[in-house]
Amino acid sequence: MGEEAIRFGILGCAEIARKVSRAISLSPNATLYAIGSRSLEKASKFAASNGFPAHAKVYGSYEAVLDDPDVDAVYVPLPTSLHLHWAVLAAQKKKHLLLEKPVALNVSELDQILEACESNGLQYMDATMWMHHPRTHNMFHFLSDPHHFGRLQSVHATASYRVSPYFLENDIRVKPDLDGLGTLGDTGWYCVRAILWAANYELPKTARALDKPTYNEAGVILACGASLSWEDDKVATFYCSFLSDIAMDINAMGTKGSLRVHDYVIPNKEKEATFSTSSNSDFVELSIGWAPNPCVHTTHTDLPQEALMVKEFSSLVGAIKFSNSKAEEKWPTISRKTQLVIDAVKASIDNGLQPVQIKD
Amino acid sequence: MGEEAIRFGILGCAEIARKVSRAISLSPNATLYAIGSRSLEKASKFAASNGFPAHAKVYGSYEAVLDDPDVDAVYVPLPTSLHLHWAVLAAQKKKHLLLEKPVALNVSELDQILEACESNGLQYMDATMWMHHPRTHNMFHFLSDPHHFGRLQSVHATASYRVSPYFLENDIRVKPDLDGLGTLGDTGWYCVRAILWAANYELPKTARALDKPTYNEAGVILACGASLSWEDDKVATFYCSFLSDIAMDINAMGTKGSLRVHDYVIPNKEKEATFSTSSNSDFVELSIGWAPNPCVHTTHTDLPQEALMVKEFSSLVGAIKFSNSKAEEKWPTISRKTQLVIDAVKASIDNGLQPVQIKD
Repeated sequence: MGEEAIRFGILGCAEIARKVSRAISLSPNATLYAIGSRSLEKASKFAASNGFPAHAKVYGSYEAVLDDPDVDAVYVPLPTSLHLHWAVLAAQKKKHLLLEKPVALNVSELDQILEACESNGLQYMDATMWMHHPRTHNMFHFLSDPHHFGRLQSVHATASYRVSPYFLENDIRVKPDLDGLGTLGDTGWYCVRAILWAANYELPKTARALDKPTYNEAGVILACGASLSWEDDKVATFYCSFLSDIAMDINAMGTKGSLRVHDYVIPNKEKEATFSTSSNSDFVELSIGWAPNPCVHTTHTDLPQEALMVKEFSSLVGAIKFSNSKAEEKWPTISRKTQLVIDAVKASIDNGLQPVQIKD
Repeated sequence: MGEEAIRFGILGCAEIARKVSRAISLSPNATLYAIGSRSLEKASKFAASNGFPAHAKVYGSYEAVLDDPDVDAVYVPLPTSLHLHWAVLAAQKKKHLLLEKPVALNVSELDQILEACESNGLQYMDATMWMHHPRTHNMFHFLSDPHHFGRLQSVHATASYRVSPYFLENDIRVKPDLDGLGTLGDTGWYCVRAILWAANYELPKTARALDKPTYNEAGVILACGASLSWEDDKVATFYCSFLSDIAMDINAMGTKGSLRVHDYVIPNKEKEATFSTSSNSDFVELSIGWAPNPCVHTTHTDLPQEALMVKEFSSLVGAIKFSNSKAEEKWPTISRKTQLVIDAVKASIDNGLQPVQIKD
């Protein structure tokens, strides 16, 4: 801690910023340093109620956070339509970037953000928290095991939560000028990331939206799904929604095993999380059961996944700041692939559900 | 038992007939009465090793079983391409019909079978065993609950098992002249039935195959998937395969809850089976967990699902035989709907993955 801790500035007082503020507090190599809002009063209240230390800087604008030379990194939870402007400006001001998802309205915007980070030698990471849970690493280890999982054949992912009537009228995620991708950018982001992750980040070749996306009156997507396919024979499907009760499932089928998880985005419980696998199963005599039976695996974690995200990001930022390391390319790379697939699904929805080629 | 038990004849010595023979033995209102094979020796061996009573009839042809006036019902596990001939003949000989799936090569064939049963006042049922597990009834009760599940929004089903190299060369299920629908008719049948079941048997309007079905050299499908859609906004996807390790999942998402089961076709264990649900879930403060957490439900059963199938079928046959009841229409109706969807998926696969309208 102390001098080595990465000093975070936060742009805006979004609800999700409360969770990330706690995560920064919990992370051993990060510190809450500054908060900026268009309203100084809101920023002060946010700092007071979210664990900011007494000496933290409270600013009445986003610019002021970016202009503070002691801010190492910014967390940007603003509405997506504002990301291009503020993320690029943050990079120009030499701030490392932890960017809330959906990261951009499309890959062309994201490319400008990534280019700004790269040309300034900055670390970029999207705030996809579940990537950092140790369960995720354990699951990935299983999916990579040629003997127990084999080659991926099919993966299905879901992400939904049922929003309130108030949300449906007022939330930024249903406003075309703020988060124009609707649930596809919000919950669909998780599905697409889960599918890419299960496919070891091999980019699919084709996306095709499922029938009957649901829209609000302003034309923002409230529920949709898609199928994805690759050069080889594997396929993926997903369904994301603001209109279904909470669901967060990954169901991956391989030649030699399968994996299921039901709370991959936000684990049911903070300190332990489960998934189940089955490997080299066969039917018992007369096909009246299976052997071996599926196994449940439990992963314990002291730090919640969002604190592990902050810790990993801060570690990479620290390596750049203190050891002249280069930025870790994995995070911008998988963020961009996620956006490419989201863009293709959106294009398929917009063109009458025709298949859309995904081009890198 | 005794006079009231329904007397079964079995056509052929298929592997699956061993399981169903045991089920007939276990069912309190059914009895193993006759077995017929083109080889009398095979039939004798089958009877001796599958619990047939000493007085059971062993025939060297299928016709002989149908000509035996004491046979009440036949179980037909022959290759699908033979169903039309033998099922219609069985009906003409006044035998009630328990027909193994895939029930027919297409709905036009199935309609001839159903018409033969109906015009002869006979009970028809397809041998989809999982429909008869008490867990299935418990799950259906949950899916029908407007407060805990709400309206179905999305359902994904899988069914797969990894077959042996021997199977890939020799099994009837990979032979175009025997089971021409391949895995779509075999494992896909379960997926389609699961989706119809979850949708309370509302027939979808459209089927569209997923990219990249896998074929063997003879053009039989070894792995495929599809999406289905209805008049309203719900959607379904499925994936079925002979090339993935065992998977049998239903993942249903409703407006107010969700349901998951991982062994719906054949439960891991014979006497108890589980599923999990979640209802009216919300994120806890700071979205660091859910409340309430999902629940696991366990159903115990003394009789295995295939014996419960035989019991239900025999009970309906008994009502016709002893009480002049009419045949229960539910079973032919849902069998036909399943076949209609399978046909549409096959048509979509055959026409380059274009959407196919499902017409009743």
